[in-house]
Amino acid sequence: MLFGVDLGGTTVKMGLFDADGNVTDKWEIPTRKENAGSLILPDIADSVKSKMAEKGLKKEDVLGVGIGVPGPVDASGVIHKAANLGWGVFSIRETMEGLLDGIPVAAGNDANVAALGEMWQGGGRGCRNLVAVTLGTGVGGGIIVEGQILTGSTGAGGEIGHIHIVDDEPETCGCGNHGCLEQYASATGVTRLAKRRLEKDDAPSALRGSSLSAKAVWDAVKEGDAVAIEVAKEFGHYLGKGLAAIACVVNPEVFVIGGGVSKAGEVLFDYICDEYKKYVFHGSREAKFVLATLGNDAGIFGAAKLILDEIK
Amino acid sequence: MLFGVDLGGTTVKMGLFDADGNVTDKWEIPTRKENAGSLILPDIADSVKSKMAEKGLKKEDVLGVGIGVPGPVDASGVIHKAANLGWGVFSIRETMEGLLDGIPVAAGNDANVAALGEMWQGGGRGCRNLVAVTLGTGVGGGIIVEGQILTGSTGAGGEIGHIHIVDDEPETCGCGNHGCLEQYASATGVTRLAKRRLEKDDAPSALRGSSLSAKAVWDAVKEGDAVAIEVAKEFGHYLGKGLAAIACVVNPEVFVIGGGVSKAGEVLFDYICDEYKKYVFHGSREAKFVLATLGNDAGIFGAAKLILDEIK
Repeated sequence: MLFGVDLGGTTVKMGLFDADGNVTDKWEIPTRKENAGSLILPDIADSVKSKMAEKGLKKEDVLGVGIGVPGPVDASGVIHKAANLGWGVFSIRETMEGLLDGIPVAAGNDANVAALGEMWQGGGRGCRNLVAVTLGTGVGGGIIVEGQILTGSTGAGGEIGHIHIVDDEPETCGCGNHGCLEQYASATGVTRLAKRRLEKDDAPSALRGSSLSAKAVWDAVKEGDAVAIEVAKEFGHYLGKGLAAIACVVNPEVFVIGGGVSKAGEVLFDYICDEYKKYVFHGSREAKFVLATLGNDAGIFGAAKLILDEIK
Repeated sequence: MLFGVDLGGTTVKMGLFDADGNVTDKWEIPTRKENAGSLILPDIADSVKSKMAEKGLKKEDVLGVGIGVPGPVDASGVIHKAANLGWGVFSIRETMEGLLDGIPVAAGNDANVAALGEMWQGGGRGCRNLVAVTLGTGVGGGIIVEGQILTGSTGAGGEIGHIHIVDDEPETCGCGNHGCLEQYASATGVTRLAKRRLEKDDAPSALRGSSLSAKAVWDAVKEGDAVAIEVAKEFGHYLGKGLAAIACVVNPEVFVIGGGVSKAGEVLFDYICDEYKKYVFHGSREAKFVLATLGNDAGIFGAAKLILDEIK
């Protein structure tokens, strides 16, 4: 059996898997961030041990524990600061192995680990080269090359939300730059594009007078609202261009699109794919676009796969 | 001993290496492209065998033969068309192993293989995550992730010259798109930027009246020519922006800059690095910039390293 752990800012999602990738149990514990996050890993270890006791699993029945963490984790399992958790720099792997009496542990960045999950049991099943794109509050990415996470030299691989895509953007991105992909393709970005479009003139739209959100925009697109369709085109233009740049670098077989915005469904692809093909190098023109299928479980699946690959 | 082979459109460069990466002999043979390129691999095999006879090497003394090829080669050593050589789709590895009586063979794309060479014995020595950028007639790239070539799903990984960088470019890139990085950062690109700048007004410049070339531009930059410096700034702006996008994807430790334009030397970095830092995600801000050091030998070094990794 394997444990997959997805450590978030409020809750820790946990899953128990068999080696074939079937999840046999899922549960959550709160993320206790007090004392510079020093309780978090002991809490996770305790939860793993309780589950082992509950299921009658001995140490030798557990192949390992994989953990996805919201911060840059290098290839050796060292976290390089997770401000959100109060963490500095230390080896998650070594700390957890100590807490778990030597059960093997592997750790990775949460977005990268979720990408691995989508490759293993989700939308990218059967592919070994994929880019997972999470269109949520921000734009996150996870890149899988030949079946393995692309971590990068300082754990910042796959930070695709911060590709510069628009010159002369007056507003500042959360990262401090201007014109990042995230400013146009995230849920907040779509809302912002809609707000700007509505302010431009008085064209009638279902979006007027209601509370703006990415969901409202895509609902209106599906109803044929002309203003919402303009916004969707602008979104697709920026995202298609950004994904084309990514494809020139890593030449993926498939893009797996997830996160809140992806709940709009395959209508997204109507706006992304043509723009992608317009800008991409011909050698990457045939890349597929699919929706993520694991939702919030991608993290625990990917974490289980991470440790499974490690112990092989 | 190892053989490293760099197959080009006019000549095949060949090198004999010891397992520590020292080149003990270098030579060239012509690339005979007639008969749909069917003579090329037999010619290379004959040259390997002659060299073995000359040096008194038996089959068991040769660890293997690595080959870099101008076209997309997948991870299994299959070439997917090399128009320049008249080649279609076939396994270079299997064909060469047949011609060499079972001596192990590995094949890769020439730009990727050259990047591996620069990592092993060149400007990127000691790094495991690097991006090699070749500023020649075009802009080529080779990406190394954790010491291994990023091939991509169809062998089009590292095609960084075709990242879209400028909107509204009227001229067409060799790939058929408009506004590719290659149109501004290659030797031809720099020349074109200079031509456009000179046509804009009558500002005095040493570049007027002489034959324009990338070398002439960089020579003038070193002399403090104001117009040439404007061109260098534009070049640096586009290239810095392109490399920042690449860094958001693969987070390299170092960029190794080679090719004809790089002969200008470290003055290039004065124009690239600030622009790079302006656009890149902070997690990749500390990437280093170095010049390639192996010149035309990067290909044979990388090819030797390719087979060395394969047989490990």
